[in-house]
Amino acid sequence: MNSTTHNSLSSAISDATMKSTEGRRPLILISNDDGFEANGIRALVDMVKPFGDIIVCAPDGPRSGYSCAFSAGEPLTLRRQDNMGDDVQVWSCSGTPVDCVKLGIDQFCLEDQDEEHYSFPESRRHRMPDLILGGINHGDNSTVNNHYSGTMGVAMEGCLKYIPSIAFSSCYYSADANLEPLRPYVQQIVKRVLQEGLPKGICLNVNFPAREEFEGVRVCRMTYGQWINEVVRRPHPRGYDYYWMVGRYHNDEPDAEDTDQWALNHGYVAITPTHMDVTAYNFMDHLREWNISSE
Amino acid sequence: MNSTTHNSLSSAISDATMKSTEGRRPLILISNDDGFEANGIRALVDMVKPFGDIIVCAPDGPRSGYSCAFSAGEPLTLRRQDNMGDDVQVWSCSGTPVDCVKLGIDQFCLEDQDEEHYSFPESRRHRMPDLILGGINHGDNSTVNNHYSGTMGVAMEGCLKYIPSIAFSSCYYSADANLEPLRPYVQQIVKRVLQEGLPKGICLNVNFPAREEFEGVRVCRMTYGQWINEVVRRPHPRGYDYYWMVGRYHNDEPDAEDTDQWALNHGYVAITPTHMDVTAYNFMDHLREWNISSE
Repeated sequence: MNSTTHNSLSSAISDATMKSTEGRRPLILISNDDGFEANGIRALVDMVKPFGDIIVCAPDGPRSGYSCAFSAGEPLTLRRQDNMGDDVQVWSCSGTPVDCVKLGIDQFCLEDQDEEHYSFPESRRHRMPDLILGGINHGDNSTVNNHYSGTMGVAMEGCLKYIPSIAFSSCYYSADANLEPLRPYVQQIVKRVLQEGLPKGICLNVNFPAREEFEGVRVCRMTYGQWINEVVRRPHPRGYDYYWMVGRYHNDEPDAEDTDQWALNHGYVAITPTHMDVTAYNFMDHLREWNISSE
Repeated sequence: MNSTTHNSLSSAISDATMKSTEGRRPLILISNDDGFEANGIRALVDMVKPFGDIIVCAPDGPRSGYSCAFSAGEPLTLRRQDNMGDDVQVWSCSGTPVDCVKLGIDQFCLEDQDEEHYSFPESRRHRMPDLILGGINHGDNSTVNNHYSGTMGVAMEGCLKYIPSIAFSSCYYSADANLEPLRPYVQQIVKRVLQEGLPKGICLNVNFPAREEFEGVRVCRMTYGQWINEVVRRPHPRGYDYYWMVGRYHNDEPDAEDTDQWALNHGYVAITPTHMDVTAYNFMDHLREWNISSE
């Protein structure tokens, strides 16, 4: 990004995070939370393949709702897959979407992409990805889902490592939704981010409405809303109760035209720039007046 | 909070979230990510018992690093426990810290707290908790750990439901750390939040340094830093490799005196007010200039 915009950013550290590709094709790491076999990640790979070398490291099955969770206590495994053609390395991982990003960078983003490195030599030079992508998610990740989403977990993990990162999601929940109408938007956004980078600590949460033609693109803020009626109880045949987490989303500001949910409800592609710095700056002065002490 | 402060807040929806207790003792829901048997949650219950009726709904074992994850795909179970005395209801849950908050509210925060309701009648009136607490975590949740922490997942889940919420963590990782020095601070902060509430969409991330005397309290912003060397590979006896997620934290701004990590490193209690609205407002105008379209 240019220095004018750069200076106008108030983030604590606002250096652009675009990596120089030094004349090489960009290295793009892709993950998701629906698993490596999902149509959404295969569509995304197909859309961005023209722009760089792709490495896929994605969960071995569904991991919806995994947020920024990582596996602090369990060992993880990786398995080579071949479901996306000869020119795309695909690895499935037993862990969370965030684990996939951490392992994908650590194990596969090497200086030289030759077969020798897949035997994991102890000493090797890293080439960090130029871009990290999550998605295309089968389901809406706007509004408070920004916090719960494993797809956003992928983008946030990249963001926490200062790598330009984008999450793409479609409001079509169906596993065989037609994602082709997203192609020109995905490609333009990816090209732009590869060219300009993103400010340090900011990633993009891009959501597409459940339709095949879009009214345009809106840059939005996160909607305030909440999940209600989230728990359904069922009796187990052995006599105890168990619970399913479900729920219905309630929009607390349905008329706010600057929100991502409004954009989606009105047929627009919603881009919500998302910040890793979650500090509530506007409450700090008030909090200081509390004068908390040991007395 | 008073209306002057209220008006100075720039959040999209800034109504104070304090619930009127209507003359009743406050209802406090407590969870954590170390499990219901951890010393930290037992210490926290003991510290806040004077201020309200306590319901504990916590994971049945360790869930560190679970962030805001919830169980979208697996059924959950609850089990009544009795490890915190006769006057505290304790439930263990097979799910994540966020699941515990969702289930705890749905199943146990009832209008009348009598035994009849534990049989889960279909129709019942809810009394939302007046306060949700996470912790006391055995380990530091400042800086980027704000995103990964299951303890912060508890507080963020409360925050997403507009309930005043606080996460407490100690930089002592030891399971039998002496948490008694935290008592006056925990009690003052809890009393203050019960009196004043917190602005809608803001929760508190409170971290204590690994010492028994503190220099004081600092209201901080989230530090920029990252985990490095996160993956350790091990050979399995059966011939394949597996991986442990570990890592070392690197502070990217060690001299920034307004950060939570600086406060902790210098012996201060760090309070980081944390916002559910993750929108990067300062990047929206620049993003609009990209003019993304279908062309």
